[in-house]
Amino acid sequence: MTRQYAEAGVDLEGAEAAKARIGRAVATTRTPLSVGRVGAFGGMVRIPEGMRRPTLVLSTDGVGTKVLVALEAGRFDTVGEDLVNHSVNDILVHGATPIAFMDYIAGSGLGVQEIAGLVEGIARGCRAHQMVLAGGETAQMPGLYRAGTYDLAGTIVGVVEEDAAIHGDAIRSGDLLLGYASTGLHTNGYTLARRIVFERMGLGISDRLGGLDRTVAEVLLDVHRSYFRSVMPVISQLHGLAHITGGGIPGNLVRILPAGCEALVDPASWEPPPLFTILQRAGGISSDEMRDVFNLGVGLIAVLPPEALPAAQAAAAAAGVETWTMGEIRPGEQTVRFARP
Amino acid sequence: MTRQYAEAGVDLEGAEAAKARIGRAVATTRTPLSVGRVGAFGGMVRIPEGMRRPTLVLSTDGVGTKVLVALEAGRFDTVGEDLVNHSVNDILVHGATPIAFMDYIAGSGLGVQEIAGLVEGIARGCRAHQMVLAGGETAQMPGLYRAGTYDLAGTIVGVVEEDAAIHGDAIRSGDLLLGYASTGLHTNGYTLARRIVFERMGLGISDRLGGLDRTVAEVLLDVHRSYFRSVMPVISQLHGLAHITGGGIPGNLVRILPAGCEALVDPASWEPPPLFTILQRAGGISSDEMRDVFNLGVGLIAVLPPEALPAAQAAAAAAGVETWTMGEIRPGEQTVRFARP
Repeated sequence: MTRQYAEAGVDLEGAEAAKARIGRAVATTRTPLSVGRVGAFGGMVRIPEGMRRPTLVLSTDGVGTKVLVALEAGRFDTVGEDLVNHSVNDILVHGATPIAFMDYIAGSGLGVQEIAGLVEGIARGCRAHQMVLAGGETAQMPGLYRAGTYDLAGTIVGVVEEDAAIHGDAIRSGDLLLGYASTGLHTNGYTLARRIVFERMGLGISDRLGGLDRTVAEVLLDVHRSYFRSVMPVISQLHGLAHITGGGIPGNLVRILPAGCEALVDPASWEPPPLFTILQRAGGISSDEMRDVFNLGVGLIAVLPPEALPAAQAAAAAAGVETWTMGEIRPGEQTVRFARP
Repeated sequence: MTRQYAEAGVDLEGAEAAKARIGRAVATTRTPLSVGRVGAFGGMVRIPEGMRRPTLVLSTDGVGTKVLVALEAGRFDTVGEDLVNHSVNDILVHGATPIAFMDYIAGSGLGVQEIAGLVEGIARGCRAHQMVLAGGETAQMPGLYRAGTYDLAGTIVGVVEEDAAIHGDAIRSGDLLLGYASTGLHTNGYTLARRIVFERMGLGISDRLGGLDRTVAEVLLDVHRSYFRSVMPVISQLHGLAHITGGGIPGNLVRILPAGCEALVDPASWEPPPLFTILQRAGGISSDEMRDVFNLGVGLIAVLPPEALPAAQAAAAAAGVETWTMGEIRPGEQTVRFARP
């Protein structure tokens, strides 16, 4: 079952109304880079004009077992946006602007209404970044997937001037770490979180979570935040960016450190949101494991020279995202160290 | 479990030897378009220099239930190449040259040795097309996948000059249809083929298939052929190209026909390989269903003016691919018609 997003028609078997929803959702993602006459087998998008040495930045990822929470909650309209925003951040850290997205939805017994919900979420995420939803594939494979489940993955295509791409090599001692608030778990740590919430705490998907005034479904399905608007206005002033995904702060920040540099993180500089405290207490999880699995309220870390700090803070504030200075770069051995236990 | 192909190291948990195999396989796919200093979160590839109006052609696809045959046969080194070649053909039909590939491998209980086999097959397909394997994701999700199964999908990125892209709009009455031989089922019709071979015929994966001198595993795992070398030398002379996948000849050829044109296919112009006759007889499948599900030995159809025929035939022959003139374009209503039942 192939969908040809770029085409006028969407070649999906099943309910006409749902197909129309998909078609409308995809149509809303057209951008000035969309190529007008599009063929049936591949989606097309133009490289922006006027670039000297355009370089593509590509990433393929899934949303992991967050889909199981969404299934349990019967919600199909949020995980698509999770997928897109996660992907946007993965190429944003190299300075790239997203131009196109492709999705892959595979499962067993997924209805066309549910697929429409997923595609609408993906399209919403694309629209928010003026990115073409250039194509997608839907596969029903009962032999592979457990009944009633599905997997959701996608590929993002971004573009950056080759000499403007961020690799982390500009990071140097004296740079500051600026943390950007996450909305929750984003898309990592769901296997552990599900075990704690559903097994240890014995909660159902519609129960209130701990002392929070929201249900398990609401809290666990908070949409992965995109940092595109927070970061892009000051991208040329940044020395490095780390998207805090699986592996947490230490596992991701270390990926961009050049030789001779360590990152010193002060855990007292921000307060992890209550969700993380609830999970830690209920699960009896050590602080080290919490740091390795969850983002602890920090979805992105920028490494920047002190003189760039005010502009970076202002850009994030303008985008409605809280930030905090959470540490600095010092001479060391490509490690991430926490200032206190 | 993320892999960062573009990085020096491959971040896969498990056996060091298998990780080294993956690292070596990925390293062999570097091309002149690979960007030297690459960050950890996204893979990078340069747009070829000297293009006036570079346009990306993108496609995401999976290999479907061919993976179940490969699992049954215990073979992990072929489906990766199937995936790449299928994808190459999907953008080739628009005239695009592939420059980068990203894979997505997800499953339950898949070992790192098996993953290494999959990646080696993908890398082989990339190498054959001088395409960078720019990144990949591996996810283990027992909650979604049946034990011991995996799914394999990928995204291809190709590039074409916008005014050289093939959309089928140049097709006109009097054009000829040139068919290119497939190697077998390619990656479509496996649900039906598996039912016929394993249930109706009661064969095991290692049994001889019908009167063929090869086993079920060998025949069903024949690698999807890439038509890149057969077609690229004459691409500018072609009016349209259809990759014959799910939906068969009628379902795919119709996708490129412009208004006012029908395609008349002469089924006597080529002989479907014995595999298809065996499947039809054993399964009691009608000719119509055979045409809608299988490629019947035709993996690609080019639509071209008569004067381009000799060059197109010669290019295919030079690439070792058999071709035949299988019909023509006539005035009509955007349909594919078979000349006799």
